[in-house]
Amino acid sequence: MESLLDVLGSRLERLLGSERVVTDPVRLRTYECDGLTNHRSTPAIVVLPDSAEQVAEIVRECVTAGVPYVARGSGTGLSGGALPRADGVLIVTARMRRILEVDIPGQRAVVEPGVINLDVTRAVQPYGYYFAPDPSSQQICSVGGNVAENSGGAHCLKYGFTAHHVLACEVVTPEGEIVELTADGPGYDLLGVFVGAEGTLGITTKITVRLTRVPETVRTLLAAFESIEAGGRAVSAIIGAGVVPAAIEMMDALSIEAAEAAVRCEYPPGAGAVLIVELDGPETEVAAQFAEVERLCGDAFEIRVAADDAERALIWKGRKSAFAAVGRISPAYIVQDGVIPRTSLPSVLARIDALSDESGVRVANVFHAGDGNLHPLVLFDDAVPGAEERAEKVSGAILDLCIEHGGSITGEHGVGVDKSRYMPRMFTEADLDTMQMVRCGFDPMGLCNPGKVFPTPRLCGEVPGVRRGAHPYEGKADLF
Amino acid sequence: MESLLDVLGSRLERLLGSERVVTDPVRLRTYECDGLTNHRSTPAIVVLPDSAEQVAEIVRECVTAGVPYVARGSGTGLSGGALPRADGVLIVTARMRRILEVDIPGQRAVVEPGVINLDVTRAVQPYGYYFAPDPSSQQICSVGGNVAENSGGAHCLKYGFTAHHVLACEVVTPEGEIVELTADGPGYDLLGVFVGAEGTLGITTKITVRLTRVPETVRTLLAAFESIEAGGRAVSAIIGAGVVPAAIEMMDALSIEAAEAAVRCEYPPGAGAVLIVELDGPETEVAAQFAEVERLCGDAFEIRVAADDAERALIWKGRKSAFAAVGRISPAYIVQDGVIPRTSLPSVLARIDALSDESGVRVANVFHAGDGNLHPLVLFDDAVPGAEERAEKVSGAILDLCIEHGGSITGEHGVGVDKSRYMPRMFTEADLDTMQMVRCGFDPMGLCNPGKVFPTPRLCGEVPGVRRGAHPYEGKADLF
Repeated sequence: MESLLDVLGSRLERLLGSERVVTDPVRLRTYECDGLTNHRSTPAIVVLPDSAEQVAEIVRECVTAGVPYVARGSGTGLSGGALPRADGVLIVTARMRRILEVDIPGQRAVVEPGVINLDVTRAVQPYGYYFAPDPSSQQICSVGGNVAENSGGAHCLKYGFTAHHVLACEVVTPEGEIVELTADGPGYDLLGVFVGAEGTLGITTKITVRLTRVPETVRTLLAAFESIEAGGRAVSAIIGAGVVPAAIEMMDALSIEAAEAAVRCEYPPGAGAVLIVELDGPETEVAAQFAEVERLCGDAFEIRVAADDAERALIWKGRKSAFAAVGRISPAYIVQDGVIPRTSLPSVLARIDALSDESGVRVANVFHAGDGNLHPLVLFDDAVPGAEERAEKVSGAILDLCIEHGGSITGEHGVGVDKSRYMPRMFTEADLDTMQMVRCGFDPMGLCNPGKVFPTPRLCGEVPGVRRGAHPYEGKADLF
Repeated sequence: MESLLDVLGSRLERLLGSERVVTDPVRLRTYECDGLTNHRSTPAIVVLPDSAEQVAEIVRECVTAGVPYVARGSGTGLSGGALPRADGVLIVTARMRRILEVDIPGQRAVVEPGVINLDVTRAVQPYGYYFAPDPSSQQICSVGGNVAENSGGAHCLKYGFTAHHVLACEVVTPEGEIVELTADGPGYDLLGVFVGAEGTLGITTKITVRLTRVPETVRTLLAAFESIEAGGRAVSAIIGAGVVPAAIEMMDALSIEAAEAAVRCEYPPGAGAVLIVELDGPETEVAAQFAEVERLCGDAFEIRVAADDAERALIWKGRKSAFAAVGRISPAYIVQDGVIPRTSLPSVLARIDALSDESGVRVANVFHAGDGNLHPLVLFDDAVPGAEERAEKVSGAILDLCIEHGGSITGEHGVGVDKSRYMPRMFTEADLDTMQMVRCGFDPMGLCNPGKVFPTPRLCGEVPGVRRGAHPYEGKADLF
């Protein structure tokens, strides 16, 4: 007996050609997870469309069949936003990889969703421009994925997130229509809600990105402090002075140790924390502000200024390798992603230390210090029974700390499947209902990346409407 | 016999106290229009709530009674976004005028919607900060109105629109619930769609605004050119060189003549166009870039650099008075608001000239040249029969030009009642349906500022859903 998914698979093959449809179980396994590898689920069907029209056809087929679908770019996301459904279709944008237009006078480019983040920069660099969002996965992640997750990066302190660099998106709605969303201009700014909706409001098929001019100059320093607190004070002093560095990154002793073990970055020995501060812009401005930053890092026991690109790359090497490097000092780890007000940095870090001491679970801290985005790496040994659970507990407690300090449960990795259960700690029921309402507007059948972002998947009919009491005009029939 | 609106009026008086409810016909007339004075409609009831809770109660009363309502700040909008309904309630936020919190280390302030734009700046200026959005009405317009219209201003070229300076809004939804919308953080960015939705998605009752540091220095020049084309070339050259001035404003000969007649700004005689270019930022950067701007204005026959604040104010005086000044040279005029790509400036201006010549209708051009936002002032004599219609026709043709060049029908004044009929020229039906879908999610009863933004008011049930053909699985009963 043919199953519903078999029929759908055959129809998709007829529509797209068999080379664009994967149903072979071995090949399907490739897609069972994204960067959040502790959640896995093999999709029933994978499709690799070439065009917006094909994406729209696929979506309409899924809607007609009542089958859920999930879009996937390069699969580098860290919250399981592209985790497939075993009973559904995975729509992979890897074949939609054309840069359609580069408009230098207009400072914009139009790209397909599968285009690799760094390839945008490569295409426009000869003209003195680049694409500003720089997640650490930028060599492999796709612009479509950046749009779904509203990706940040080390330089989003000054340059903002993906949302600030997207001018328009062509989108296949969950009802299979192709629409154009723009930020400026009349009518509703639906681009804002689409970017960062983690693929729950439709699939982007064409993205107009803003291009940023390569700054005249870039200067980078590494400052080594005795303690995290001293480093934190320097961060507050820099921001408080009105300097907006391109990046301020902080690493604690444990993450320095890991980086050292992995890539021999040769950061100053004995540092309790290092800060990497990068300034960019016009030569004259950078020179003046750089001197101020050096002064504000006065408590550092060592400051190294990169004399050239090679030295700059060396300073960044430790930071960029930090996540992977932690593998050298721990068999397994959880990458947490939370946000706190910059001003709470010292107190939250002290509380994380205390959590670690109490539980015996080691935590390495790496963070975008300038915007209060913490990436604690919670270490554990997966060979020890119960160790992962203990690590999960500490990891969750760190999120609680973030919420308690008026922060957020995610800075740039998204909610996905990973953090949907924390949403009610940040939002009231009314807040979540308002979001659901929008979701149900876009996706009345609940087939577009279901099970992500929201804590309790509900059918759209269950979202409460107007709450009425007894009708106050009852009995006043003459009024109507 | 008591009417529905009488009952509602009595209920609102009981809820809010009679001093917060206006039903006297003479007092109601005060509210019959906003800044777009050619549309007038006296509301049935005006309420002046003090708190979010009162706003929520009012909205719930309106929903229960099935009566439409419109929110109004200071009523300075130029597209009729706050035009009342004769059969409805006008909710005026003038009594909600408290600055609730100023958080200098966090660079933010929390204000009620009735707070005057400039009062935010006044409150934080002693600390070296200001609120960046600066519509020309900033001495009287409200922050709530700025949020509804996503207001810009002369300096939005560098600093962006209101949307870029709002971090969170407390909102009373069209169903009378109080929710919190934030831009960053997990879940949907509903703030982006709310800001600029022209009051159709709810009423903001508390706004967290971003504060901007007062720049170290500001330098302003006035450059006089023989022709608009020469001025336009200078604008392109400045932007092309990567300089981002705080403002670049342009005025043509007719608007200069008007300003001269009104405020004796003493701009260089015989100018076909003047440019005002303002740079701000760190002293060293501004000095370097200012020299470059002077060089790029090399075709000007005269350049004046403001030596101090008084001279700077004098340069701005002509520009700031331009709209009102046009009253000196024409009995009546229409303020148009359109956007074109900066690169199309010269060709669109030539077309506007041609339109003016063909029709005999005079057009004075004032614009935010840096971001391609045109404000043509279309002049007419309201004592001459048919003159207004001819002016309207030219004004509409200018919008067509903007659309034809890939621009927009509004840069900063909004769609309101004024331009809803142009929406189908910019958007496909599917695009507009997607916006309607969101509107219907927020406002299923269609009572929140109805008749604005969208070309054809429709009941929510009429918004098309999934378009289905014959069901492809029909006859395959064994599948289900």
